[in-house]
Amino acid sequence: MNAKDKENMSEFALIQRYFKTLSEPAASVLLGIGDDCALLTPPVGCALAVSIDTQVEGVHFPHNAPAEQVGRRVACCALSDLAAMGAQPLWATLALTLPQVDSAWLEAFSRGLGAILKRFHTTLIGGDTTQGPLAITLQVHGSVAPDQALRRSGAQVGDVIYVTGCLGDGAAALAYLQGKFQPEDAACTYLTERFYAPEPQISAGHALAGVASSAIDISDGLLADLTHISEASGLGATIYIEALPISPLWCNQVEPTQAQHWALTGGDDYQLCFTLAPERQLPQSQAWQAYPIGVITQTPGIIILNHGQPVHINTGGYEHFR
Amino acid sequence: MNAKDKENMSEFALIQRYFKTLSEPAASVLLGIGDDCALLTPPVGCALAVSIDTQVEGVHFPHNAPAEQVGRRVACCALSDLAAMGAQPLWATLALTLPQVDSAWLEAFSRGLGAILKRFHTTLIGGDTTQGPLAITLQVHGSVAPDQALRRSGAQVGDVIYVTGCLGDGAAALAYLQGKFQPEDAACTYLTERFYAPEPQISAGHALAGVASSAIDISDGLLADLTHISEASGLGATIYIEALPISPLWCNQVEPTQAQHWALTGGDDYQLCFTLAPERQLPQSQAWQAYPIGVITQTPGIIILNHGQPVHINTGGYEHFR
Repeated sequence: MNAKDKENMSEFALIQRYFKTLSEPAASVLLGIGDDCALLTPPVGCALAVSIDTQVEGVHFPHNAPAEQVGRRVACCALSDLAAMGAQPLWATLALTLPQVDSAWLEAFSRGLGAILKRFHTTLIGGDTTQGPLAITLQVHGSVAPDQALRRSGAQVGDVIYVTGCLGDGAAALAYLQGKFQPEDAACTYLTERFYAPEPQISAGHALAGVASSAIDISDGLLADLTHISEASGLGATIYIEALPISPLWCNQVEPTQAQHWALTGGDDYQLCFTLAPERQLPQSQAWQAYPIGVITQTPGIIILNHGQPVHINTGGYEHFR
Repeated sequence: MNAKDKENMSEFALIQRYFKTLSEPAASVLLGIGDDCALLTPPVGCALAVSIDTQVEGVHFPHNAPAEQVGRRVACCALSDLAAMGAQPLWATLALTLPQVDSAWLEAFSRGLGAILKRFHTTLIGGDTTQGPLAITLQVHGSVAPDQALRRSGAQVGDVIYVTGCLGDGAAALAYLQGKFQPEDAACTYLTERFYAPEPQISAGHALAGVASSAIDISDGLLADLTHISEASGLGATIYIEALPISPLWCNQVEPTQAQHWALTGGDDYQLCFTLAPERQLPQSQAWQAYPIGVITQTPGIIILNHGQPVHINTGGYEHFR
């Protein structure tokens, strides 16, 4: 883009051009992108669930990652928080910080972001573009019946702990993208997709709302996130390491202890971890799966058992500033 | 902060420690900071107004700006968008990107942010902290009767154009903070305060909701923002340059043409610019002021008159990527 193009491409035009197409008409949107605020009518009788997340280049995704993939990833990760609350997505707002105007980047990013938002019926209602190091903040908004929202604090002693799918993919993908792990071709494709488009478990969250006793999405690693549930509930947990679902696509290409370590402590999996009273029936669906991996206990702390034997794991999921 | 402190100060603890105190109990907040989403009950019968804004160090505020001032500025600028819509503030979410954990910085930032949010009865309901170059994204949420919201698109031919206070302060303050303008002491104090805590015109917006035909807050400069109103309304405008309110604290310390240029094109003033049908009475209040500065016209484009003589101004408010 030459200097003249830049001059013509004001911030205002930028937003209009690349993102207004993502602002699809919706009954709940009185006024979308283009004024000082968006104006919305939240569904009556529902609680509004909101979550804000930032992804920074070089921290949350690699430098020079494909823009379309970055757009998909940002949307998937943000929507995952709505899934964890049992909420149905409604709207998103985008705060995009870019080093410079780059039409090709913006077009691809918008395409990736838009594809995921559209699939989950989420309308982009507002945004802000600023100049600076590449970082993307997305806030998502959804609706859920107030008494059915999946909080972290509702687990009870004896509740069974489930996860909705394979663990460790996020950590394995990161190792692959960083060149520290070279899996077979099929696994490369799988892990790249799991990193850039971790499926938000919206269907699972919706089915579990009012049914599960607690839930969280696994963004910091199973142990770290299960700790959030157990601490918020004032309880503990026991995990059966042999029950953890790990993808056969890469699992046999690393040491078993490495695979288990990634499954227990790796971040970026975006599966739901939820608890269910043993007398309650698990909702059945073709759209999602559930794997029992442990049980909620009275004594605070998390115990990990490997075929009945306690195992010590160097815990700590992915935390910033470490 | 030493390595051990860093290890103990996880992201989770960070949010809890510095920002949970800003999450004051409110009837509309079912669940605040600390779960995957906040859960909210928007006021019944009102539209929800939302706006998201990012401020990047070195772009929107100087490098090494005092943290408390940065916190105040971020809150004031964000709330200004609710004012421009005629909305009453409800909640805020914060996405904070920091180069490293710095307790003193966080404490001061939180204090500044909290002071402004508290004054405008705004509860912090959620947040995200990430590692990266210093940038702050704040989303604000407010309520307004859907048929009374102040849109940009409602101006009519003959409507009088008003602003709620002095123009050019933002540009004068920037010149001062950059060392390009050395005003007298009283002006230094005034401009510093106007830069870091530009008063969100919430009272004015509330009084004008359902009364003014259109409104915008002046963040990009009077001409740029008035252009948004005139274009959204499909009309034009005439501005009387001698009617622009400019602070006597610094106005006589620069050339008259410089003062007028700052008033017309400088960003960061955060006054409201609004239009009012000539037959409608301006709401009277001690809490805010209104200065008539021009009129809406049929022909697109903005004409600037200086005592009746057309003046050409090198337009363009502050735009990123230029």
